[in-house]
Amino acid sequence: MNQIKSYIAEHQERFLTELIDLLKIPSISADKAYKKDVLKTADAIKDSLEKVGCDTVEISKTEGYPIVYAQKIIDKNLPTILVYGHYDVQPPDPINLWDSPPFEPVIKKTDKHPDGAIFARGACDDKGQMYMHVKAMEFMTATNQLPCNVKFMIEGEEEVGSANLATFVKNNTEKLKNDVILISDTGMIANDVPSITTGLRGLSYVEVEVTGPNRDLHSGLYGGAVANPINILTKMIASLHDENNHISIPGFYDNVEELSQQERAEMAKAPFNLDTYKKALDINAVYGEAGYTTNERNSIRPTLDVNGIWGGYTGEGAKTVIASKAYAKISMRLVPNQDWQNITKLFKTHFENIAPPGVTVKVTPHHGGQGYVTPIDSVGYKAASKAYQDTFGKTPIPQRSGGSIPIVALFEQELKSKTILMGFGLDSDAIHSPNEHFGVWNYLKGIETIPLFYKYFTELSK
Amino acid sequence: MNQIKSYIAEHQERFLTELIDLLKIPSISADKAYKKDVLKTADAIKDSLEKVGCDTVEISKTEGYPIVYAQKIIDKNLPTILVYGHYDVQPPDPINLWDSPPFEPVIKKTDKHPDGAIFARGACDDKGQMYMHVKAMEFMTATNQLPCNVKFMIEGEEEVGSANLATFVKNNTEKLKNDVILISDTGMIANDVPSITTGLRGLSYVEVEVTGPNRDLHSGLYGGAVANPINILTKMIASLHDENNHISIPGFYDNVEELSQQERAEMAKAPFNLDTYKKALDINAVYGEAGYTTNERNSIRPTLDVNGIWGGYTGEGAKTVIASKAYAKISMRLVPNQDWQNITKLFKTHFENIAPPGVTVKVTPHHGGQGYVTPIDSVGYKAASKAYQDTFGKTPIPQRSGGSIPIVALFEQELKSKTILMGFGLDSDAIHSPNEHFGVWNYLKGIETIPLFYKYFTELSK
Repeated sequence: MNQIKSYIAEHQERFLTELIDLLKIPSISADKAYKKDVLKTADAIKDSLEKVGCDTVEISKTEGYPIVYAQKIIDKNLPTILVYGHYDVQPPDPINLWDSPPFEPVIKKTDKHPDGAIFARGACDDKGQMYMHVKAMEFMTATNQLPCNVKFMIEGEEEVGSANLATFVKNNTEKLKNDVILISDTGMIANDVPSITTGLRGLSYVEVEVTGPNRDLHSGLYGGAVANPINILTKMIASLHDENNHISIPGFYDNVEELSQQERAEMAKAPFNLDTYKKALDINAVYGEAGYTTNERNSIRPTLDVNGIWGGYTGEGAKTVIASKAYAKISMRLVPNQDWQNITKLFKTHFENIAPPGVTVKVTPHHGGQGYVTPIDSVGYKAASKAYQDTFGKTPIPQRSGGSIPIVALFEQELKSKTILMGFGLDSDAIHSPNEHFGVWNYLKGIETIPLFYKYFTELSK
Repeated sequence: MNQIKSYIAEHQERFLTELIDLLKIPSISADKAYKKDVLKTADAIKDSLEKVGCDTVEISKTEGYPIVYAQKIIDKNLPTILVYGHYDVQPPDPINLWDSPPFEPVIKKTDKHPDGAIFARGACDDKGQMYMHVKAMEFMTATNQLPCNVKFMIEGEEEVGSANLATFVKNNTEKLKNDVILISDTGMIANDVPSITTGLRGLSYVEVEVTGPNRDLHSGLYGGAVANPINILTKMIASLHDENNHISIPGFYDNVEELSQQERAEMAKAPFNLDTYKKALDINAVYGEAGYTTNERNSIRPTLDVNGIWGGYTGEGAKTVIASKAYAKISMRLVPNQDWQNITKLFKTHFENIAPPGVTVKVTPHHGGQGYVTPIDSVGYKAASKAYQDTFGKTPIPQRSGGSIPIVALFEQELKSKTILMGFGLDSDAIHSPNEHFGVWNYLKGIETIPLFYKYFTELSK
């Protein structure tokens, strides 16, 4: 592709300003209070896709937040790339831990990002990475170098389970027909160690409620004589891991894909420094399932984490109360072959079974999705690998990610095509955390790499 | 005492209106936001004590909320009764579970209170029970029947540990000199089963903080590889009880007073119906320390209850985050001979010891106090017993309470006098809970019984 570097150099200020404007809208899909902002973001995405030369651009209503769909078909005989991304973001709390307001983007230099990084909720996950594709499209249309057909499907409910996207995909398989799906919603190992994500974990997210007495009680008059829902909840959650940190839910590991020693040896080659890892998180030790390394624990092994817990008096000072109810949000990361709906069922049954007399338990599934693995010998993977080779000057490392994009497995099932996960963020970009950011260098490098994927995918598809 | 019934009958409407006005002020000592209201309540108490004929009435400043002190000395040779109570109240949350606003008192009939009960935070604990003493004083002065000297000490920090009252008492032992201390801040078994509280549990209240990674993390990228502070906190709390629900803190039971089989047999005579108890709380089973009955578990045995727990995402929907920190408020009810400061130390040491690598733990003591037992052969107890005999037509049952009034042990230590706990509330009055209430009958019965205690205590002291 010609002039790509010069085009980016010429327009990079505008590329940044446009992204910053997008990041100013608090499109928090988990919180109804932000409904207007989420919808406003969808409109902004629609406008941006029209500006960069898509033929058809539509906002498709769903039972939840709309899906922005766009396409440019230049020749039915050429391959078609479907770009997926999301315009919603995670809630920003705990807000007090942000160095600058989450929806007032600022660019600051960091050790890992000497050219500066954009600090804002959604900077990396996923507005920044999604917008790289819009700007890559701009370059290809502006310079008449779009080599194939392209479709965009940008949703607003990824952070809350993509329930309505699933329906949309099932009802529009013809419209969404494609030869490969391209997503930038993952990370890479380091700016000088490019990698392509070849695996994702599945997810089962549930909420549990433990009810004891029918009202809050005085802990002096009733303490010791009735089941305290919070004490019980802690006992129940604690029992979900054994002394080796294996998950103790019967049947949980039944379908877990066990990697061969050779595969694990391959994985171990990825650059990783435990001291750096611990230092970055300010912890004196790592923690996890016996018999596996840190990189295995957070990629090829399933997990069970409490994401939130609450009950009783949590205000200032002291209140001697036995709460009537205690709650927790619990998510399980799953590996390929674990069916998330089955795991959710196993959790529900087990959690209800271990409730002692004196309390009642309610388990409410939130959402979930299957894990995913993509082969590295596909046309898509080869095209991505060549693109990185050109822009990073290195062959990217195939890498399993611990994260989940539940919709990817569904794409393959419904649309019969593979997904290529070209992520340009870093693990240290603090997505889902306070001070989320995205390197300016990474943002521009993504815009530079994407058109080359289009080029090589078209060529290799001939 | 003459005309007491007729005086109450004549003035009961006003007695109720005055209490209701007091209950309208949200004197929540645990929450700084209500500072003005707490102070306003102190002024109201001062005014009411002046109105009923105390000679000296002062508002004594402390480092926290003031103590209202009043006295009427009629003859140095007569005995002196020190009345203690508190004008602060518990926080009302969870507010949504109240049938009527906690600070807009309403009178409603209930099964246990056919004459109606006043529903409001503080109705029973302790504004209502404290105000009985003010109105009893009114009767005695209005009818010239005050038989002895009286001192009032009404504080505003009982619900947050009475730290400043302790200082006040230590610095004013001469001023507070008395022959017996009278408190109505406990309950009785039933309106037709009067009882006098002869024992109180001690208390140690702590707050714990578990810190893992230095920031909230994405549970996909880090899940399974780092210690999750919430999971760890649940494990640590769960481990504080063994399979028999004995508390597993080393040394915790060292000084626990073990009752003889005979004493336990005596206790077992108090009317108690397990089915009624379970039905009232809507639980299918009781729960607690193996080898003890429900009434023993909540009175003569020490306990450890989580009063509040929080961490991670607790908002609407789902957030896949590993929190950096998790917190809990934990209180231990102690029995006579357990020193609360020693127990607090034992807890802190043990909780810090069981923290696994990968997290750091902080334990912050909130407050505490010693347990207390009063003999039933004292002049004070006999006087109280005779007073109940007159007004209830029955001899009251001596009863150990599971609650704590930490200051009582300090009174004995500093002022060298015994405390008589004449409580007129019922366990079902939901103190510390939504819909706290106090029976109108109980309120008036208290006003009727208290002057008789004054009479008999003076007579028996001769």
